[in-house]
Amino acid sequence: MTDWRSEARLPDERIAAGRAYADGKVVPATRAVALLEAVLRPGDRVCLEGDNQKQADCLARALAACDPGKVHDLHMVQSGIVLPEHLDVFETGIARRLDYSYSGPQGGRIARMLYGGQIALGAVHTYLELFARYFMDLTPNVALIAGVSADREGNLYTGPNTEDTPTVVEATAFKNGVVIAQVNEIVERVPRVDIPGDRIDFVVAADKPFYVEPLFTRDPAAMTETQVLMAMMAIKGIYAEYGIRRLNHGIGFGTAAIELLLPTYGERLGLKGRIATHWALNPHPTLIPAIEAGWVQQVHCFGSEVGMDRYIRERPDVFFTGRDGSLRSNRAFCQTAGLYACDLFIGSTLQIDLAGHSSTVTRDRVAGFGGAPNMGSDPHGRRHPSDTWMKAGHEAQGVGDPMLMRGRKLVVQLVETFGDKLVPTFVERLDALELARKTGLELAPVMIYGDDVTHIVTEEGIANLLLCRDADEREQAIRGVAGYTEIGRGRDRAKVEELRARGIVRRPEDLGIEPLDADRALLAAKSIKDLVHWSGGLYEPPAKFRNW
Amino acid sequence: MTDWRSEARLPDERIAAGRAYADGKVVPATRAVALLEAVLRPGDRVCLEGDNQKQADCLARALAACDPGKVHDLHMVQSGIVLPEHLDVFETGIARRLDYSYSGPQGGRIARMLYGGQIALGAVHTYLELFARYFMDLTPNVALIAGVSADREGNLYTGPNTEDTPTVVEATAFKNGVVIAQVNEIVERVPRVDIPGDRIDFVVAADKPFYVEPLFTRDPAAMTETQVLMAMMAIKGIYAEYGIRRLNHGIGFGTAAIELLLPTYGERLGLKGRIATHWALNPHPTLIPAIEAGWVQQVHCFGSEVGMDRYIRERPDVFFTGRDGSLRSNRAFCQTAGLYACDLFIGSTLQIDLAGHSSTVTRDRVAGFGGAPNMGSDPHGRRHPSDTWMKAGHEAQGVGDPMLMRGRKLVVQLVETFGDKLVPTFVERLDALELARKTGLELAPVMIYGDDVTHIVTEEGIANLLLCRDADEREQAIRGVAGYTEIGRGRDRAKVEELRARGIVRRPEDLGIEPLDADRALLAAKSIKDLVHWSGGLYEPPAKFRNW
Repeated sequence: MTDWRSEARLPDERIAAGRAYADGKVVPATRAVALLEAVLRPGDRVCLEGDNQKQADCLARALAACDPGKVHDLHMVQSGIVLPEHLDVFETGIARRLDYSYSGPQGGRIARMLYGGQIALGAVHTYLELFARYFMDLTPNVALIAGVSADREGNLYTGPNTEDTPTVVEATAFKNGVVIAQVNEIVERVPRVDIPGDRIDFVVAADKPFYVEPLFTRDPAAMTETQVLMAMMAIKGIYAEYGIRRLNHGIGFGTAAIELLLPTYGERLGLKGRIATHWALNPHPTLIPAIEAGWVQQVHCFGSEVGMDRYIRERPDVFFTGRDGSLRSNRAFCQTAGLYACDLFIGSTLQIDLAGHSSTVTRDRVAGFGGAPNMGSDPHGRRHPSDTWMKAGHEAQGVGDPMLMRGRKLVVQLVETFGDKLVPTFVERLDALELARKTGLELAPVMIYGDDVTHIVTEEGIANLLLCRDADEREQAIRGVAGYTEIGRGRDRAKVEELRARGIVRRPEDLGIEPLDADRALLAAKSIKDLVHWSGGLYEPPAKFRNW
Repeated sequence: MTDWRSEARLPDERIAAGRAYADGKVVPATRAVALLEAVLRPGDRVCLEGDNQKQADCLARALAACDPGKVHDLHMVQSGIVLPEHLDVFETGIARRLDYSYSGPQGGRIARMLYGGQIALGAVHTYLELFARYFMDLTPNVALIAGVSADREGNLYTGPNTEDTPTVVEATAFKNGVVIAQVNEIVERVPRVDIPGDRIDFVVAADKPFYVEPLFTRDPAAMTETQVLMAMMAIKGIYAEYGIRRLNHGIGFGTAAIELLLPTYGERLGLKGRIATHWALNPHPTLIPAIEAGWVQQVHCFGSEVGMDRYIRERPDVFFTGRDGSLRSNRAFCQTAGLYACDLFIGSTLQIDLAGHSSTVTRDRVAGFGGAPNMGSDPHGRRHPSDTWMKAGHEAQGVGDPMLMRGRKLVVQLVETFGDKLVPTFVERLDALELARKTGLELAPVMIYGDDVTHIVTEEGIANLLLCRDADEREQAIRGVAGYTEIGRGRDRAKVEELRARGIVRRPEDLGIEPLDADRALLAAKSIKDLVHWSGGLYEPPAKFRNW
């Protein structure tokens, strides 16, 4: 007789064991280690919520403090590897296997631990892809998550940083898993219910509020005139030409400069209402001037951003908010919107090769992908047209049966030819390939493959890869905007001039842009303080961004 | 001074108007028309929940009964156009614009209304794509949804058919919209909270339980030996060869036959545990024998299926269930899993052309796509390898830099060379193109484009399109399995034999399958009654499938 409840009985057993340390569902922070030791079993798949912003840090410390004799060989399945504790657990043997998406600050340490064999790596995913596997073959047995507050029934208020939480909880709670939430406070009644209490088994009253990284704050004071020039080219040569209304911006200074140029340069070009109206974007402070100037109709957010809460509350026509007034973000849905409902993804990268493949992985850092490969890919499953998408499709397909014409997602790389410390962005071969070889990865950690990239923008110009008809043209188009890098100097000058005549390579002057006009004066805000002004004092930047 | 709450004030105004017909949040069915007339405004974007199974039918009738003088020019944004009322509203002028995904029974009427100009069609989407737009540019102002029960605070129990509801509600409730739920009953306490009450504004006590279509029930008694043969070829020639563990099956008899052959033919081939362990699938009754025989580790569901409730409750190790014991389905997450976490999609279609493009649209029916284009596409954003996926990638890419080798999703079309009424499946030109021309669609309603299809299985054999090196080889591979259709008879026999020698076209005998062995005796269940037996009496088929 088959036992059809061998897994389904587990939550009851685990919860019964955990109850010894709880008052109802509530557990004091001092007993978090004991709770985890009671609930966890060796080999469990565990999601320790490490989003790219919000961190379940109290539970991370508790997990790292568990006795490896009791809790060991865990398989961590979480989107962000951000805190030191996320890797400490691999050193002590508490955890052994890892499947993840993003790692900013820990990228160097992960690489060392991979080389050293301390981590058995499954794969580096995009966010949405990892979420997908939560429902397929990487379902967590235990989820350790973070919220702002909870009531005694476990009803959870995540506040503006909802992020991954509903997705993680849904996969875990409905597949015989146990969900433990740390909260900043236990309250009588939560301001809104982000997660119903019947999906939360334990609530740990954390010793301090969960950590959130201001990951999307770019100080306009640090923007260069090169970035202003590139932003002008992107707006005039891409946004205006394709009439891009629905879009996602990456995390860098280049795209932040575009945001700051909309109400100035964009306004002068008469583009208001015609471009950049609908966004899949975190609440970037640098978007404030465009919002205030009436450019932005709607923004759906992956997560929130430190200091933006009051501003968002006062702009409910623009952002998704709850009846409590605060932002409702949701990484899974925003990534889905970025994949299927946006016509443009524009971001940056560290290396681009001659085929247009790009990566943020270097020889000694495994940064992870986050959302870029998802949003920076052409979704073949898309079936709704837009003028933007169809125009890109026409360019890509050239001739062919007009009734079988399809659209294309615009995927733009915005890079300076030389990056930090004058390291060239354009390379013969991605460092990611060398890293894959050394660590034995089956699949090289390429962020965006060349066949998905439609444009590369550098300070030298725009390469339109859609119009290239073979690999040689693509290579020369890339060389043609690669400036004084070795790749750029290796160009076939005659071929690049031919590509320029065909509009495949475009210089600032071809776009009617005078490089000398690329002045910081064009930035709608020149400092964080300016952003605060634009917001009418509603934006409250974190201390490290205040110098006044 | 900009008014930043012109939209955000609307829900309060609408809710205040609706309260006249409510006791708290609760509205009797008799006042549903008055409620809708009070809440709706001309031009509103409205999601009238029409999933592919569950229907908010009480609210559909109420909407159709509204006074077009008060409620008109609505823009309907809903995944399913299934009930007559879904189209009635376009005849009376209550609705004018339509964006949708799927239409089974109403496909003919939609086509006529499109020709007649009664519907202003936005686009025919995939489910996930439409959900994506809910968060971008098709956010509903009002959502009319369906649940099993609610308490007086509006906490909603959707029961096993959760389907689209959480996604629709999230987009609407957090973007200044109003949510109205019809429920079968008002209760003191819901069995579990599928949607928190603070996202639900009104609860309509419906006059009868909402309608659910048993869309995924395939009677084994109707399966033919041709389908058994094709299922054998798929299992031996594709599932076994690629070691497919994570997969999605389409809705037809062909894939249901595969499900029924796993515990018999699959067992004989020694494949148990090596294939078909993790599924993104509705709870198909035809999967019961494979589950009972221990083949299936986990199934995540888009929706539920009529009659499967008791069975699912007793198999919580396999299905995602709530602590109340019943299924928790979720179309958005299951589609995401189908896109990014499955290695195989296999389904059927009505027409395939010489490039492998396929469509279920015919000259007089616009059926919609549902999930097929999403799950039947190669997601370029995928970054986790599997042996299956990498093997397909190697076949597709042939030679090339091994470090830049990528995987490929397997997308299989399982079709008989002649369909219903002996209409040929293989055609020179898809009827979808003619329909697009006549209705002025910008984008032809192609279900799956040829470049995403990896294999075509017919009763004549398997065409492996991954191994084809140019368009001519693809065409001959397709002709080579197109049997006695005109397309099949037009093959270049010598070329097809060459393709066969290279393993691109494979006949049953090439796979070691004797067509005479393709006997209905191989079906683990030969009738619905057999399925009930397999389930130990837990499966309770709807009356129309009972003949004993």
